[in-house]
Amino acid sequence: MFIILNIMRDLLWSKTEKNVAKKAYDEAYEEECKVVVARVKDLMAHLPEPQAVWVIHDFLSQRRREMDKKYDYRYSVLPSVFARLIREGWLSFEKLEGLGEDKIQEIKSWIRVAEK
Amino acid sequence: MFIILNIMRDLLWSKTEKNVAKKAYDEAYEEECKVVVARVKDLMAHLPEPQAVWVIHDFLSQRRREMDKKYDYRYSVLPSVFARLIREGWLSFEKLEGLGEDKIQEIKSWIRVAEK
Repeated sequence: MFIILNIMRDLLWSKTEKNVAKKAYDEAYEEECKVVVARVKDLMAHLPEPQAVWVIHDFLSQRRREMDKKYDYRYSVLPSVFARLIREGWLSFEKLEGLGEDKIQEIKSWIRVAEK
Repeated sequence: MFIILNIMRDLLWSKTEKNVAKKAYDEAYEEECKVVVARVKDLMAHLPEPQAVWVIHDFLSQRRREMDKKYDYRYSVLPSVFARLIREGWLSFEKLEGLGEDKIQEIKSWIRVAEK
């Protein structure tokens, strides 16, 4: 029953909602990548010696691992992904205008769960 | 017998030779790192979009793997390492002044083997 409900929920994202979601998701990802770029530039500008270049590799490895885990575009998990992005400041509810109230409420539920 | 000869060869690096070898090795490594830094700067300056930052991670992963494999400071393999660094232009025989003729000849042998 849970599985059936889950599949039905996936199907309930309309084309418009999918467009809104994809745009918001991509923009949040881009914002987060911008910060990664800025940090790499800063690290590059203050390299104590050429051999320290691997510090940048370590940093990128860590960020990539974290972001690959966090950014998951499956519709079944998207509300929890959006909740996390909103909590972390990469996304706002304004960017999600166009999503149905059911999705907004689910995102808010995830935020409440995380804040408990 | 081969093992015994090998151990003896390790022991034949004098303190002065070890100093020369370490300095040459470190300088070659630094030179190669400088090129990595320059390449990262170039990639950073021409990032088509923030999301492309992972291209830099891919590049650094590859270079680190290659360099970790190449730079091996065990005295038993150092002549072959130096031979490769000379062939690739990261090191010159001038930097190895102070090494005994036995090491120089072994390095030259490794270069000849690689050029065959």
